Amino acid sequence: MNTIGHNFRLTTFGESHGTAIGGVIDGCPPKWKLDFDFIESELFRRKTGQSPTSSRRKETDQVEWLSGLLDGVTLGTPIAFMVRNNDANPEDYEALKDIYRPSHADFTYEQKYGIRDWRGGGRASARTTLPIVVAGAIAKQILIGQGIQIFSEVISMGDVEQARKMGDTVGGIVECRIYCAPSGLGEPMFGKFSAELAHAMFSLPAVKGFEIGDGFALASSKGSEANDSFYNKGGKITTLTNHSGGIQGGITNGNVVVFRVAFKPIPSIAQPQRTVNRVGEPCEIAIEGRHDVCALPRALVLVEALAAIVTLDMES
Amino acid sequence: MNTIGHNFRLTTFGESHGTAIGGVIDGCPPKWKLDFDFIESELFRRKTGQSPTSSRRKETDQVEWLSGLLDGVTLGTPIAFMVRNNDANPEDYEALKDIYRPSHADFTYEQKYGIRDWRGGGRASARTTLPIVVAGAIAKQILIGQGIQIFSEVISMGDVEQARKMGDTVGGIVECRIYCAPSGLGEPMFGKFSAELAHAMFSLPAVKGFEIGDGFALASSKGSEANDSFYNKGGKITTLTNHSGGIQGGITNGNVVVFRVAFKPIPSIAQPQRTVNRVGEPCEIAIEGRHDVCALPRALVLVEALAAIVTLDMES
Amino acid sequence: MNTIGHNFRLTTFGESHGTAIGGVIDGCPPKWKLDFDFIESELFRRKTGQSPTSSRRKETDQVEWLSGLLDGVTLGTPIAFMVRNNDANPEDYEALKDIYRPSHADFTYEQKYGIRDWRGGGRASARTTLPIVVAGAIAKQILIGQGIQIFSEVISMGDVEQARKMGDTVGGIVECRIYCAPSGLGEPMFGKFSAELAHAMFSLPAVKGFEIGDGFALASSKGSEANDSFYNKGGKITTLTNHSGGIQGGITNGNVVVFRVAFKPIPSIAQPQRTVNRVGEPCEIAIEGRHDVCALPRALVLVEALAAIVTLDMES
Amino acid sequence: MNTIGHNFRLTTFGESHGTAIGGVIDGCPPKWKLDFDFIESELFRRKTGQSPTSSRRKETDQVEWLSGLLDGVTLGTPIAFMVRNNDANPEDYEALKDIYRPSHADFTYEQKYGIRDWRGGGRASARTTLPIVVAGAIAKQILIGQGIQIFSEVISMGDVEQARKMGDTVGGIVECRIYCAPSGLGEPMFGKFSAELAHAMFSLPAVKGFEIGDGFALASSKGSEANDSFYNKGGKITTLTNHSGGIQGGITNGNVVVFRVAFKPIPSIAQPQRTVNRVGEPCEIAIEGRHDVCALPRALVLVEALAAIVTLDMES
Repeated sequence: MNTIGHNFRLTTFGESHGTAIGGVIDGCPPKWKLDFDFIESELFRRKTGQSPTSSRRKETDQVEWLSGLLDGVTLGTPIAFMVRNNDANPEDYEALKDIYRPSHADFTYEQKYGIRDWRGGGRASARTTLPIVVAGAIAKQILIGQGIQIFSEVISMGDVEQARKMGDTVGGIVECRIYCAPSGLGEPMFGKFSAELAHAMFSLPAVKGFEIGDGFALASSKGSEANDSFYNKGGKITTLTNHSGGIQGGITNGNVVVFRVAFKPIPSIAQPQRTVNRVGEPCEIAIEGRHDVCALPRALVLVEALAAIVTLDMES
Repeated sequence: MNTIGHNFRLTTFGESHGTAIGGVIDGCPPKWKLDFDFIESELFRRKTGQSPTSSRRKETDQVEWLSGLLDGVTLGTPIAFMVRNNDANPEDYEALKDIYRPSHADFTYEQKYGIRDWRGGGRASARTTLPIVVAGAIAKQILIGQGIQIFSEVISMGDVEQARKMGDTVGGIVECRIYCAPSGLGEPMFGKFSAELAHAMFSLPAVKGFEIGDGFALASSKGSEANDSFYNKGGKITTLTNHSGGIQGGITNGNVVVFRVAFKPIPSIAQPQRTVNRVGEPCEIAIEGRHDVCALPRALVLVEALAAIVTLDMES
Repeated sequence: MNTIGHNFRLTTFGESHGTAIGGVIDGCPPKWKLDFDFIESELFRRKTGQSPTSSRRKETDQVEWLSGLLDGVTLGTPIAFMVRNNDANPEDYEALKDIYRPSHADFTYEQKYGIRDWRGGGRASARTTLPIVVAGAIAKQILIGQGIQIFSEVISMGDVEQARKMGDTVGGIVECRIYCAPSGLGEPMFGKFSAELAHAMFSLPAVKGFEIGDGFALASSKGSEANDSFYNKGGKITTLTNHSGGIQGGITNGNVVVFRVAFKPIPSIAQPQRTVNRVGEPCEIAIEGRHDVCALPRALVLVEALAAIVTLDMES
Repeated sequence: MNTIGHNFRLTTFGESHGTAIGGVIDGCPPKWKLDFDFIESELFRRKTGQSPTSSRRKETDQVEWLSGLLDGVTLGTPIAFMVRNNDANPEDYEALKDIYRPSHADFTYEQKYGIRDWRGGGRASARTTLPIVVAGAIAKQILIGQGIQIFSEVISMGDVEQARKMGDTVGGIVECRIYCAPSGLGEPMFGKFSAELAHAMFSLPAVKGFEIGDGFALASSKGSEANDSFYNKGGKITTLTNHSGGIQGGITNGNVVVFRVAFKPIPSIAQPQRTVNRVGEPCEIAIEGRHDVCALPRALVLVEALAAIVTLDMES
């Protein structure tokens, strides 16, 4: 279950401080000349260190392309890629080896597998989202070639500089829009476009809420307010309003797809916290080290990447 | 894509006014003596007509069991079942044959398939959720046998009697809790328990939002407020608070799983609405007939059914 | 795992003497006007009683169409169908309830599930192949519409009338050809066209061998004899010979796809046989009742049906 | 479709002369201490150059482990690995860039994708089977820990030294046995153990036939000869004979699983052959370079690897 997608499929691998992280894209259309500069620019958006909200880990993020390409052109065969974990300092984390950090995945991974990679969060680290950006940048450029554009922005976020001072972290909400997605995308019953988007977004660390169109606000509206009337816009049928967020009956209607994703604050805080160790003894931790105050600026590219992967996948 | 689940899999079929609706459950544990009364009682919860909020269609909902059972005991082979559409009056809908009802799936289905069953919403009708209740009732009783219980309630809803008077409809929010789910459920990357739940809930008609634990509220909290501290509760490690809704890193932590689902108002309203017909000509409709004012009372059993299906599936 | 196919998917259900057997086809192209006469004629080919080699069970095989159709035209939604088991006489089999018939699935089902439907072979009965014929007949007519034809014949079979006299059964070999399959079908690594065909054929009861092109004979040939030279046939590149059976590197090359399937004799023989009962005590059985001497005449339509399902699935 | 398996899943990537070949194993049981020496020894069995039948390409085959391990112990997360293509001399193949080699995948890949990696066969090269050996060696050691052993041998092969002299190649047959596989493996309808094995074996290059138990020979036998009688062997029910090859009704019966795989001769022969180039002009080629006379000695470890992958997958 480290694979997303049905036709355009991404399988990711890697732990935060293992040898490498990466992915395999299966089902990428052949004969596409990859724009590596675009992939680099997308990776830069995810990179740490470029904004006051983010951590200080220096990730060089040099992508090595392992297969599926001939002179930079896709072959239709699996595209494998990886990024080495050059800046891996596992000893920084030795102190956390036997402690369950609050609201991290330490405890649950150990419950599931009976073992966990304690070095920097292991497989649960936000670093493991990097391959999503690479695959998303490929999906996005293919979609752009079709005239489909995806943009996101932070529409709500806590007070970062205040939180940093207090050794605390903040969450926020990202809104994303898919422009010019064709109508008819999505399967009617268990593969609704909205369901696939929700599933994809909940694959990101710290995501706790997802809504489409007017979302939760619709719960307190009336049908007469919430309905989107159809009209004939110069020969093309579309809707006057877009409360539905471009999706009706789970299928895109040709209007802009709009959705929002709620991120909880990053659980790694510098303030001391009470917790227990692996044998259940109470202890206190204060998580030092290279951690973001807020994940949202870096999450934008991830939200877009997954939206692109889902859109290309549902098209195929 | 009319299948949900990986190990406990439900495939559904049927249109609102076709011959029958039903499902095939593949991967049900063998040697389980089915409690048919429980299934009936769950179906009754979904049935129309038993509350002031619901429509007047008389669904007899007699389940015919087609396979997978010997003397009411599961064989491990596919359990197929169906319910005939006895009360089918397609002519009631003839007037809507060429009209796209606002915020219904008429338009999107036709965009996708180039054809649609216009009789009562066809495959997009809420009636097609019936098989989910049947499969959910089976999953639920197996989970109950393991000590896992699932309950939901409406925590917010519009003013039904006011809306009925105005020929309008209302939405609302359902909260659901999974008690005693074992820790370790969920896959870490693309099959997170939260992602599977979100995907399942967005398979229901009219769902526009999903959140887990404190959900969207976490977006405006601080890490120090949002984190759930671990403590040793009589030898068992658990969390003091449950802002995470029982899921960390996508995997259950043994605490109660809590999530909420936002439903938009049912789009079938009696008030006149502007729309277009299949050739794009403007027209007006007022949807008469047997329609609910609010889907929520009937949605509870659906939310629970899907929660049960996801839980049993992730366990298997 | 009662589902075959990726895009054109068939899920089957049913036991020999349960209420009904049937299937759900998901992913059938929309707007196809079904030829029900053709489906009936294909079912007739599978039916018992029409040749000297087959058993005397009277199967009326009346297909009930449950969903996915509007006036006989496919909607793109799941097509569910069933056939009731009218001629079910479970008491005929009561004597076999606690006995493991040699080379039947009685023992293995019980090992797998801890329970089995002992009535006429239950899920393992050849009767459960009926839904394959229905789905195959739909796939076949869609392929015929594309100019793709599938034919099979028995190329080897034991002496039936001799075997019948001796209370014995015989096996044989079926050869099948797919004409005008487009080139480029099949996935290169783990979804080769040959692998998908082999998988499908081994889903039939009693199949013990599968070969493509010259098959096992190629094992004793030389490369210079086995290779198929390409040539330009009036502007179209094709092969002079067809030792490969139309498949190279797992992908169709546009030439006729040729394969053979080996069936063992039906294990139900009238001669007395030594075996054990469920508690391991030795006993003797002579299987009376309605059984074929040879499965092959009825197997032809099954081989073709699965070939059609695989071909349509790989195209989609 | 570069993935095999349902629970123990292998995704492979790589072209013969690309940067690297490798794989990602998802679903490997956690807490298993890998025996790297065993993996090396299995790779050695596949390696070129160690027998008179094989080619002279020097593959160093140094496996780099990228993820999923902590101190050599499996974490339950994806195990990614790769082997660099150090000895890549694409220019050796430049002459073949525009020519369709007879019975190779050059033509079919180009029909499918409109592009192909012409360097040494690209994705269709036998080199791309290397990741199967790595995954198989992991599956095999886990199975050995359970007491399950898999052995294969060449039971028929052409005259190698004669063929080499003539610039020709030969095929042959491999027989493989799975000892002590538990009863109950395999799904009854479309995931039969035999079907999964057949599918896996047809994933290997040059495979043209597969049979289980007595296979094609059963087609000319009688039921009274082909049936395997059950008997009580010291409290355990098993079969006196094993014509079925350990599988009845698609499910293992606890007896030894026996199957055979037919390989055609390697299509790369030194003798001149007639063919066409990409624009359909006739030409002649004689394939020089580093090619095996017979694939079988190297194929043994591949057959066993896939048998191990299927067995572990069906167990999970």
